[in-house]
Amino acid sequence: MTTTQLVQQIRQKKSFLCIGLDVDLNKIPQHLLALEDPIFEFNKAIIDATHDLCVSYKPNTAFYEAYGLKGWQSLQKTITYLNEKHSEIFTIADAKRGDIGNTSSMYAKAFLEDLNFDSVTVAPYMGKDSVEPFLAFENKHTIMLALTSNEGAFDFQTKSIDGEELYKTVIKTSKTWKNSQNLMYVVGATKAEYFTEIRKIVPNSFLLVPGVGAQGGSLSEVCQYGMNEEVGLLINSSRAIIYASKGTDFAQKAREEALKLQLEMESILKL
Amino acid sequence: MTTTQLVQQIRQKKSFLCIGLDVDLNKIPQHLLALEDPIFEFNKAIIDATHDLCVSYKPNTAFYEAYGLKGWQSLQKTITYLNEKHSEIFTIADAKRGDIGNTSSMYAKAFLEDLNFDSVTVAPYMGKDSVEPFLAFENKHTIMLALTSNEGAFDFQTKSIDGEELYKTVIKTSKTWKNSQNLMYVVGATKAEYFTEIRKIVPNSFLLVPGVGAQGGSLSEVCQYGMNEEVGLLINSSRAIIYASKGTDFAQKAREEALKLQLEMESILKL
Repeated sequence: MTTTQLVQQIRQKKSFLCIGLDVDLNKIPQHLLALEDPIFEFNKAIIDATHDLCVSYKPNTAFYEAYGLKGWQSLQKTITYLNEKHSEIFTIADAKRGDIGNTSSMYAKAFLEDLNFDSVTVAPYMGKDSVEPFLAFENKHTIMLALTSNEGAFDFQTKSIDGEELYKTVIKTSKTWKNSQNLMYVVGATKAEYFTEIRKIVPNSFLLVPGVGAQGGSLSEVCQYGMNEEVGLLINSSRAIIYASKGTDFAQKAREEALKLQLEMESILKL
Repeated sequence: MTTTQLVQQIRQKKSFLCIGLDVDLNKIPQHLLALEDPIFEFNKAIIDATHDLCVSYKPNTAFYEAYGLKGWQSLQKTITYLNEKHSEIFTIADAKRGDIGNTSSMYAKAFLEDLNFDSVTVAPYMGKDSVEPFLAFENKHTIMLALTSNEGAFDFQTKSIDGEELYKTVIKTSKTWKNSQNLMYVVGATKAEYFTEIRKIVPNSFLLVPGVGAQGGSLSEVCQYGMNEEVGLLINSSRAIIYASKGTDFAQKAREEALKLQLEMESILKL
C-alpha cells in the first residue's frame, strides 16, 4: 500500500485509528475457547465489527508466538482474512525485529513478502544495516521505534547523546538510510509534549502512536502537537477496544469503543 | 540450566563454542530438500556430528519465521531434539525481542517456558520493563544486546551519552534491574579492544560473542581481553561451520570446522 492510499482511506473513513489485535486467551470471551481456533475467531469478529471505523490493524506477534504453532497459524489466518476481505486496511506486523543484515532480510521476507503485511515494526539499536533490508520492499513500510510509550523509554531513549536525546539522533540518522522514504516511527502518546520536537525532524512522516487508552495517553494532545497536513498519525488502541466486554457482546462493545474514538477523530479532522 | 552447570560443561568439553543454527534452504545440501523437513534434518545431522565439541546451539528465529508455519515447526522439533537427546547443551533462542512489559511477558513465556530454551536474546532500546519479564524465569538466562558485530553498531551503540558510550550505559543500567544475575550480554568479536572496557563493568557475566568466522573476528584476541576465571565467554560461529560443505559430507565437514575451533579453545584454556 502506498502512503497516498493510506491517506485516502483516512479521509474516507474520517478515522486514523489502528486497532491492536493482542489476543490473550485468558482475556477473551470464554465461549470462544470451545472453537477450533479461538484467536482467529476472536480477531475475525473484532474485524467484522470495526473495519469501517479504523484504517489499520496491528497484531503484536508476541501474542501469537506465545501459543506456538497454533498461534502462528492464527496469525496467518488473520492476515490472510484481512488481505482477502479488507484489502483497503493498512496492516502492521508489530514484531519489533532487528538483526544483522542477512538476518534482517529473513525477517523482512517473512513479514512483508510471505505473510504480506503492509508494514512491520523494527528496533533501531543495531543501526543502519539492521533496518535497510526492510526498507528495500516497494510500497511497504518500516515502522521504527523512536520514543516508546513505556516507562523504560526513559532509560535510554531520552538520554542525551552529544547534547541531543537518543530518540532524536535515531530519527535523524535513519533519514540518511537508503529508501528512508519508507520509514514511519513509533512515538508513544504518553509523551505528547515530545511531538513538537519530532515534527521538527520528520514533518511529513507517519507516526504510529500507542499508549492512548489503557496506557493513559490523550488523543487531543497528540493531535495538537503531532498532526500534519496529511494527518500523519495512526493512533493505536488495543486493550480498551478488544477487551471492552468478556461476554457474547464483545464485538458489539468493541465497536462502541472504536466508534467513540472514530467520532473524536472525525471532530478533530474537521478543525 | 544454572551458570555453574554451563561452566562445568565448558570444563568437561574443553570448549566454549556455540554453533549458530541459521538454516537457509538456499545454502544447505540440495539432497536434503527431498526430505519432509529439510531444516530439522539438517540441524539434527549438524547436532549429531558436533555436540561433543560445543556447549551451546543458537537457532536464530529469523531463519525459521522466514518459512512460516513449517519453519516454526522445524524450530520446535530442533529444540525438542536438543532437550531430549542432549540436555547438557545450553540452548539460545536468538530472537532479539523486546516490547512493553505485558508483551515481553508473552515472548518470555514463548521461548523460556513453552519452547523451553535455556536463554533468549533481547534488545535493550525499550529499557527496564521490556527486559525484566525475561529475567523473572529461574535458571534461565537473558542475553541482552550490548555491542553488536555489525557495522550499524557504530550508528548508536558507540555514541557518547554524557561522556560514556551508549553500550556501557546499557550494561551499567541493566545491572540495577531485578534479577540482573540472570543477564548475559552480546558483544561482537569484531571489536576485541572493547572487551577490556566491558570487563570493568561486568567482570563475572557471560558474554555471547558473534562475529568469529564469517564476520572476521579473532578468537585469540577476544579471549585475551574478554575471558574471566569462569571462562565467561560463549563464542558463536554459524556459517563457517554449518555451511562448510554443500555436499553429502556436510555434517563431517561441519565437525572438522568445529573441531578446529574446539582445539584452539582447548589450547587457550590450558594457558
